[in-house]
Amino acid sequence: MSLMNNLSNSMIYSSSSAFLAPTSFNSRTHNVSVPLKSPRIVKCIATPQEEQTAYKTKVSRNANIAKLQAGYLFPEVARRRAAHLLKYPNAQVISLGIGETTEPIPDVITSAMAKRSHALSTLEGYSGYGAEQGEKALRAALASTFYGNLGIEEEDIVVSDGAKCDISRLQIVFGSNVTMAVQDPSYPAYVDSSVIMGQTGHFLKDVERFANIEYMRCTPENGFFPNLSNVARTDIIFFCSPNNPTGAPATREQLTRLVQFAKDNGSIIVYDSAYALYISDENPRSIFEIPGAKEVAIETASFSKYAGFTGVRLGWTVVPKQLLFSDGFRVAKDFNRIVCTCFNGASNISQAGGLACLSPEGLEAMQEVIGFYKENTKIIVETFNSLGFKVYGGQNAPYVWVHFPGRNSWDVFTEILKKTHIVTTPGSGFGPGGEGSIRVSAFGHRENVLEACRRFKHLYN
Amino acid sequence: MSLMNNLSNSMIYSSSSAFLAPTSFNSRTHNVSVPLKSPRIVKCIATPQEEQTAYKTKVSRNANIAKLQAGYLFPEVARRRAAHLLKYPNAQVISLGIGETTEPIPDVITSAMAKRSHALSTLEGYSGYGAEQGEKALRAALASTFYGNLGIEEEDIVVSDGAKCDISRLQIVFGSNVTMAVQDPSYPAYVDSSVIMGQTGHFLKDVERFANIEYMRCTPENGFFPNLSNVARTDIIFFCSPNNPTGAPATREQLTRLVQFAKDNGSIIVYDSAYALYISDENPRSIFEIPGAKEVAIETASFSKYAGFTGVRLGWTVVPKQLLFSDGFRVAKDFNRIVCTCFNGASNISQAGGLACLSPEGLEAMQEVIGFYKENTKIIVETFNSLGFKVYGGQNAPYVWVHFPGRNSWDVFTEILKKTHIVTTPGSGFGPGGEGSIRVSAFGHRENVLEACRRFKHLYN
Repeated sequence: MSLMNNLSNSMIYSSSSAFLAPTSFNSRTHNVSVPLKSPRIVKCIATPQEEQTAYKTKVSRNANIAKLQAGYLFPEVARRRAAHLLKYPNAQVISLGIGETTEPIPDVITSAMAKRSHALSTLEGYSGYGAEQGEKALRAALASTFYGNLGIEEEDIVVSDGAKCDISRLQIVFGSNVTMAVQDPSYPAYVDSSVIMGQTGHFLKDVERFANIEYMRCTPENGFFPNLSNVARTDIIFFCSPNNPTGAPATREQLTRLVQFAKDNGSIIVYDSAYALYISDENPRSIFEIPGAKEVAIETASFSKYAGFTGVRLGWTVVPKQLLFSDGFRVAKDFNRIVCTCFNGASNISQAGGLACLSPEGLEAMQEVIGFYKENTKIIVETFNSLGFKVYGGQNAPYVWVHFPGRNSWDVFTEILKKTHIVTTPGSGFGPGGEGSIRVSAFGHRENVLEACRRFKHLYN
Repeated sequence: MSLMNNLSNSMIYSSSSAFLAPTSFNSRTHNVSVPLKSPRIVKCIATPQEEQTAYKTKVSRNANIAKLQAGYLFPEVARRRAAHLLKYPNAQVISLGIGETTEPIPDVITSAMAKRSHALSTLEGYSGYGAEQGEKALRAALASTFYGNLGIEEEDIVVSDGAKCDISRLQIVFGSNVTMAVQDPSYPAYVDSSVIMGQTGHFLKDVERFANIEYMRCTPENGFFPNLSNVARTDIIFFCSPNNPTGAPATREQLTRLVQFAKDNGSIIVYDSAYALYISDENPRSIFEIPGAKEVAIETASFSKYAGFTGVRLGWTVVPKQLLFSDGFRVAKDFNRIVCTCFNGASNISQAGGLACLSPEGLEAMQEVIGFYKENTKIIVETFNSLGFKVYGGQNAPYVWVHFPGRNSWDVFTEILKKTHIVTTPGSGFGPGGEGSIRVSAFGHRENVLEACRRFKHLYN
């Protein structure tokens, strides 16, 4: 009977398939959905406060997600930028905030992607699902280009749609019962993904950090490398070099200590080398340059900042076969299972672009892109130096870390945005250790970077 | 002191940066990594069993992943196919297993992707990070094309790299403290992602199912629609129509019952409409055609099987703003947070392809692709009908569900592979309710489908 009631209830709605029906973009009618009431409860009085009477499911919100603070950092920065533009619609806003690449992708790479696109229209060139782990040729090229003499092989590498996505997939592999450490400050996806997976406690407002995360303070005083004798053992250690946001690369000696620290503790290092090619001195570009690292480390990397692939989406992660859980099970096997179940491979067109990146011409073209952004960095560093600021990073990374001692970094962010229309990133967005600093990204057209520096000089001279 | 020992230990290794060093693909030397021993423990006797002495971290394997059975279904099918090819290297294997599209992508779509690729090499055409939720034009086109009169708007839609990936992101939103129901049989990613997130108990060998999952049996006897009066309440209900693997579409009346069931229970339906455009009769193509569904349902969809995008990677998910957790919090807000934290948007080139799919020419071209595969389906259905098999699906879906009463479906899979060199998918891979059936995919070149049908006739005549 209840069923019949429901059915006749449903008759009052007229709905027909909208699929492929000729509709224009602007014809969307706002069919406010009327909550189906149980036939037994008849309310005749219109309730003015719809919010209160809106139908709610009985599904509880995930308590871990509720722990997260405000929005993810970069959308929050974008939100404030948009609000600024609403207020100053004619402002010439320059964005040195999110690490957003601005320079065109070298033609040798886009031509390869265009070629692959066209090939998909042909019987011979068409391909559907590829291996979830990535195309064999690309994995082989990654292995030989980046790990040629380090004992990392094709089958240790999984191609992805970017390092950020792989960080989440790695967190799914680890699950909720691990503990984790991060550099403080660091890229916020490490902490946020850890919170989401339920590895942490609540956010502690007084100390501006999550319970159950080990924050490894990295400051100018310790050369941006944590004092490991003060760091508690955790299962997972996220480590980014050159660091985002401070731009500091870890030295070979420091990474050797880190690997030994992990080994002594039985920890797994997740090493984010997304900016490794910005290193121009002798510092390591891969954790696997450190002896023994294959038994304690995973490395995640990306084409985003080398080839302008932030929108194309392509990265890779190395999980060496030597890396074992405490029961001897290979971490790579579980990572592979997650990749196969939660992912379906990076776009085949993006992978064609990645392969072109690793050709001799592609490698040269990437170095030119990197060189361009590094010149930007130099200009920014010199500007802040000339203004008497303490400036870090920038030598081996596309980020400049500017110190504003004693000041709240969101206040500095707001001051700069308001007075110069330049978007930066507040240091505290990267962890409590980032308070008092801002990150200035070197990703921008040259004329914009020069103009931004003129404005910085005008503001702080 | 320990530190100094470690440092001098590390000196015996010679490693230098391999990045961009000129190495050939085949020169990878197998530097077997020597485990670093604590300096205090000196072992001089070589241990013959390296497995037993290999260094293990102290990180416990994620117990939820350990619950998973064997490999994810499709890689397992691929593995058996590869093993078969090793045994019969000259066999003309025809794959009607994984739903792998085979026909070229229409030129109107690949041209748009090639154009976007080339544009990325220009200052005006370059774009980096897009909105994590997808490009505005594509979201608007999805809203108007598929949900024009259903009250779903651009901001309710998030563009993704495929439905499978979004299913996992949705599971991250839900977390580990929800209960879930699936059609039995169904696409294995629902159950596997649920197990991975810790929503289930262990696999119960005797009943071939996981504890704490509600398996909604869908058989010919109930018209492949569950008897909802026997289904326990769960937080989440995964529902795919037309169903993969049975090919059965749910009717408007059935979906109205399902929505009412969810509403009565306060459940959230995750509606997988990846095959919706294969429906050629009056059955709904979107759950949002059902009145009230916006308050209880999410819909996930994909370009994979419409435009041959299995390798290009593009899909979308609709989370209506009307869908609320029990505390009144919008599900869409948490989904957005997860998308922003765990994902960085689909490739901009793929999105250009998606937009082209939704142009008048693109829609027509997609219908031609779908029409081609539907003709394949007809050929397969007629073949098995002529052989006296009970055959289901195939009218509104690219899958044919063939009944082998009383037989183990992996045995049938093996028999067919061995005797005809045709790869199918065993029904039990989709859940215990799939036992006794196999899924034959209609994705294939016409001559291969015809040849496969000749072989089926030869085998079963």
